[in-house]
Amino acid sequence: MKDKLKYYAEYTEKKLKEYNKLDNEIINQKTLIDAMNYSLEAGGKRIRPVLVYAFCEACGCNFEKVTAPACAIEMIHTFSLIHDDLPAMDNDDFRRGKPSCHKQFGEAEAILAGDALALLPFEVIANDDRLASEEKVKIISVLAGASGRCGMVGGQIIDMENEKRNNVDEENLRNMYKGKTGALISASCVMGCIGAGADDFHIRRASEYAYNLGLAFQIIDDILDVTSTTDVLGKPVGSDAEENKVTFVTLYGVEKAKEIAEDITGKALDILDDFENNVFLKELTKMLLTRNK
Amino acid sequence: MKDKLKYYAEYTEKKLKEYNKLDNEIINQKTLIDAMNYSLEAGGKRIRPVLVYAFCEACGCNFEKVTAPACAIEMIHTFSLIHDDLPAMDNDDFRRGKPSCHKQFGEAEAILAGDALALLPFEVIANDDRLASEEKVKIISVLAGASGRCGMVGGQIIDMENEKRNNVDEENLRNMYKGKTGALISASCVMGCIGAGADDFHIRRASEYAYNLGLAFQIIDDILDVTSTTDVLGKPVGSDAEENKVTFVTLYGVEKAKEIAEDITGKALDILDDFENNVFLKELTKMLLTRNK
Repeated sequence: MKDKLKYYAEYTEKKLKEYNKLDNEIINQKTLIDAMNYSLEAGGKRIRPVLVYAFCEACGCNFEKVTAPACAIEMIHTFSLIHDDLPAMDNDDFRRGKPSCHKQFGEAEAILAGDALALLPFEVIANDDRLASEEKVKIISVLAGASGRCGMVGGQIIDMENEKRNNVDEENLRNMYKGKTGALISASCVMGCIGAGADDFHIRRASEYAYNLGLAFQIIDDILDVTSTTDVLGKPVGSDAEENKVTFVTLYGVEKAKEIAEDITGKALDILDDFENNVFLKELTKMLLTRNK
Repeated sequence: MKDKLKYYAEYTEKKLKEYNKLDNEIINQKTLIDAMNYSLEAGGKRIRPVLVYAFCEACGCNFEKVTAPACAIEMIHTFSLIHDDLPAMDNDDFRRGKPSCHKQFGEAEAILAGDALALLPFEVIANDDRLASEEKVKIISVLAGASGRCGMVGGQIIDMENEKRNNVDEENLRNMYKGKTGALISASCVMGCIGAGADDFHIRRASEYAYNLGLAFQIIDDILDVTSTTDVLGKPVGSDAEENKVTFVTLYGVEKAKEIAEDITGKALDILDDFENNVFLKELTKMLLTRNK
């Protein structure tokens, strides 16, 4: 499983570089391309592209067919990280041990690099030569919907607004997670199915799987923030409590939150029984949901 | 002509509102939608949508067919204005006499409103029920290409980098204009033709028209910055000289710049002879290129 994960990640990194390459670079445009590449290269496990590939294969189609949507969603994810790190947002000087984009290239440059990475995905999908026009349109609808005001960006605004209030309830928290992290995860699974020509039943099941995966992942994040150590986690623990954030742990306590996470993990695994080639996906799910960092 | 222009603009404004309306608004998402609407409503002449409609009609098709791409390009334009006004970019507190988006809603909110307005266009086009899938894919390719690193955003980075240099030549200036303002104007004209099912010849001519229109428009901007008064222009004159900007006027002087603008205007008008229903477009071109503000 780990070999395949590594292969998918490396394949994605190679393709991201190709998609962002220009044949005729105009003088002075280089800064933008460099800033985009800098952040694209600073990636982690490339979970979103991996989910696109994995669902495409689980539906019986070769993963290379969905190269464009897989790279597109990683670009969207990267754009959101660049803008998240900006001084006006989370004001983070570092991202995965490297200076964040605005620290390396300047704030205006980072805003523009993020903007360009929000737009390139649609160009890449529209110009792809593996997908049919109908598939492209469906995939673009899913990707743009998941990224925008009712998806990732919507989740970010809910998160920001929640910080100003002290009556955040579970429904509000779920909506925030659903947008902020869940929407792109869901889009990844669904786009993999669409690219494979899957039927509506499998697209719906992929979306339900993603909802559970994303939520469990987030609850585990909340738990690790209070149970792990800074050494293991590689980032400061206790930051949620410090910021007075409402999380599943503050709502239910660690034990109950663990139970909820296990319950949701079980649901996610059960859904995968509806897919034929589900071995890799089951192992991936277990890996993501039994992590200690 | 002015009646039609007004009708197109009002139609666009109505549709923009509809596209940004949510049936089920989640608590706390409202700020985002409000910030998006605030900037969408603060529009000017809606020149880009008007060009989409006008080229669609010039190719013999009803303008309503291209409602989605027309509104999409206005959203992209609006997103770029919101991000341009940010403190890290041009740091403008006002936009058309109203507080700019970040002054009204906060900086983080403005970044996110801009992001959401960069993504919504692709959702709107993908979900449109007037255009065929092939048309949507072509239009999305044009729109994303014109907006991103090789179009509008690319032009902005070239502009920023030029300010740091003192050896800006005409080619560099043309590349900057081509991206910063020309790309969206070109996309408007081309998308109108694609939506009307025009052939490659007309698409190419529309693109050539747009190149000349955009460049002439920009040169006139440069001229007005030194020949007009703050009263007539409604914004401070002399700002280019103050910022030591290289413009067509600093390169050639006012008289020669006027000649170039007239020459390019003539070329744009000649190209329109290749389109059947060109009366409105010819009047529009003359209006845009003989303005005194």
